[in-house]
Amino acid sequence: MFGVYLEQKELFAHHPFILENGERLGPITIGYETYGTLSPERDNCILLEHALTGTAHAAKHDEADTPGWWDPYIGPGKTVDTNKYFVVCTNVFGGCSGTTGPSSINPQTGEAFRLEFPGFSVKDIIKVQRELLEELHITKLKAVIGGSMGGMQATQWAIDYPEITESIINIASPLACGPDAIGYNLIMRMAILNDPDFNGGNYVGQPEGGLATARMIGMMTYRTSELFSKRFERFTVAESSPRAFSKEHFQIESYLQYQGDSFVERFDANSYLYLTKAIDLFDVTSAAENERPAFSDISIPYLLIGITTDQLFRIHDIRRHYRLLKEWHVPVHYHEIASEYGHDAFLVEEEKEKFAPVIQHFLETKTLSTML
Amino acid sequence: MFGVYLEQKELFAHHPFILENGERLGPITIGYETYGTLSPERDNCILLEHALTGTAHAAKHDEADTPGWWDPYIGPGKTVDTNKYFVVCTNVFGGCSGTTGPSSINPQTGEAFRLEFPGFSVKDIIKVQRELLEELHITKLKAVIGGSMGGMQATQWAIDYPEITESIINIASPLACGPDAIGYNLIMRMAILNDPDFNGGNYVGQPEGGLATARMIGMMTYRTSELFSKRFERFTVAESSPRAFSKEHFQIESYLQYQGDSFVERFDANSYLYLTKAIDLFDVTSAAENERPAFSDISIPYLLIGITTDQLFRIHDIRRHYRLLKEWHVPVHYHEIASEYGHDAFLVEEEKEKFAPVIQHFLETKTLSTML
Repeated sequence: MFGVYLEQKELFAHHPFILENGERLGPITIGYETYGTLSPERDNCILLEHALTGTAHAAKHDEADTPGWWDPYIGPGKTVDTNKYFVVCTNVFGGCSGTTGPSSINPQTGEAFRLEFPGFSVKDIIKVQRELLEELHITKLKAVIGGSMGGMQATQWAIDYPEITESIINIASPLACGPDAIGYNLIMRMAILNDPDFNGGNYVGQPEGGLATARMIGMMTYRTSELFSKRFERFTVAESSPRAFSKEHFQIESYLQYQGDSFVERFDANSYLYLTKAIDLFDVTSAAENERPAFSDISIPYLLIGITTDQLFRIHDIRRHYRLLKEWHVPVHYHEIASEYGHDAFLVEEEKEKFAPVIQHFLETKTLSTML
Repeated sequence: MFGVYLEQKELFAHHPFILENGERLGPITIGYETYGTLSPERDNCILLEHALTGTAHAAKHDEADTPGWWDPYIGPGKTVDTNKYFVVCTNVFGGCSGTTGPSSINPQTGEAFRLEFPGFSVKDIIKVQRELLEELHITKLKAVIGGSMGGMQATQWAIDYPEITESIINIASPLACGPDAIGYNLIMRMAILNDPDFNGGNYVGQPEGGLATARMIGMMTYRTSELFSKRFERFTVAESSPRAFSKEHFQIESYLQYQGDSFVERFDANSYLYLTKAIDLFDVTSAAENERPAFSDISIPYLLIGITTDQLFRIHDIRRHYRLLKEWHVPVHYHEIASEYGHDAFLVEEEKEKFAPVIQHFLETKTLSTML
């Protein structure tokens, strides 16, 4: 189910994993995939961070392999050149694709954690990644790259582990989750919590309707109205009838239903609850009185890419955060991209030429190209 | 429950109400309120059309009356001056605030219609209004005014009954519902249909969680990210904890929960299903081969007001529809308004000064002010 290239390791077997909230856990399992070859000096590693519903399977390992979520960017001669770099992509802690999460067995009870899983943060997610790198004897990272929730992880790396990280690339992700993303996350959780099959997290199978509805809400925020207008207009499904609350009269409806239904096959509802909460709570801009906000300590080259059409993490927030980074003299480089694909643009092959040159140049030089 | 000023009339007692889909119904009840005094010549009437969740109670009738949904605009000396005009506002057919809808008793069975209620369209909604005006011996309208779903009704008036209508004011509503609004409507219906208490429409009380979730989704599209950022930032509720999927840790969450919960008290879930479907199906731009689209027959002065920040009915669609109207030589006047309140701006007292002068001038002159 996880793909043949997934590797798994046990972590925190000999010392506990102490979460940000003080709870302790361990041992846990981490699932990850790698691309390219680790150099003898072990100094060519890039850590790649996936978004909310991503997995460790970022790219095909060979022609026969299943597609990954960042195939256009990862591979020999590509943006992140695996002839040169050794790329590690882990499934996030709390997820459901190879790393310990709410659907994993709690060794204390012999039963799945479900809602007994500890609440966790983006800080906890990357602490687990850090532990894996120790296990792999990787003590230096060329870069940490991520988009959306992956960008939050990349930012947290810049703050927590700058000593082993040379640079950060954060795509389409703010320094603090904004109120409208919090609102959508709440509504998505409501759809799951209200599902008749949710059963306090102890569902058999999945709370299908609620989880599908949550995914459908997500899809509305990941793309743009312009794209939907162009692609779907008011086209109807052949031989459909608008009567009786048919759920697939219009093509946009059919598209959303498909997105919702296929999501239920691959993502655990409890993981969705926990991960959206971790996104809500992400905020490196706040600070106690007379203290500096966490982001102000970023001391390594940091590339921030904002998408002007983003409906989830709005450009007005990204721009405000860029100004904050400048004010605190963080070595930040900022680039904006317009795309009718909106938030998801960095995942869409058609838009690769907007992102790839910026990312590649920054990877090589730690600066933005003057040609941009 | 409906307010002391609600009047009700029985319609279609002697001839059937034949719906657009061919089904027949009758008699039915219509609930309406009036403001101002009908002139002896019966020629000073304005028909006001409410949005999806509105009612016939558009404004206070006196100081002791409960607030209406358009108080800033309706009253003596106001934009729609009740010293001059006689304003009629009906509750929409299929609604739940005084006019026959899914929660009404079906005289054929003695039980509530619920999902046995016929599917209906915006065309059907205004046909019922037309019948009321006949009953009231009103044969001429100074204007039909509406916003959002009310704007769809106003547009349909221009097409179906131009002979008794002098002008139309359509605020924030397209000539055809776009794919993203259809998508959100579908998702809102999914939340209701999936509620454990929905019971195929035969709920006792209400499918509370689903209906509240639907309303919360709606609220996200009625306002803007900028407004939420300004009003809520990442403020938390006093003494709240982020643990255990608390639903009200952030103020934006508390706001949305309140909006959802209070909606359940006042709106019928089945009406919500039917009315959102009527919005989906609204399209006066399509035409059979070699035929003219319905909107092209609009022959009376038509004011279209677009809101540039609208997250539900996007400005790119409104602008496209304006160009279509111009191409077909419809006597259209177009005005754009920017507001951080987004789609709901026309309902918000703070933004009155942006809308009121345009509406008032058009009402008086059937043109846009050259001062704008």
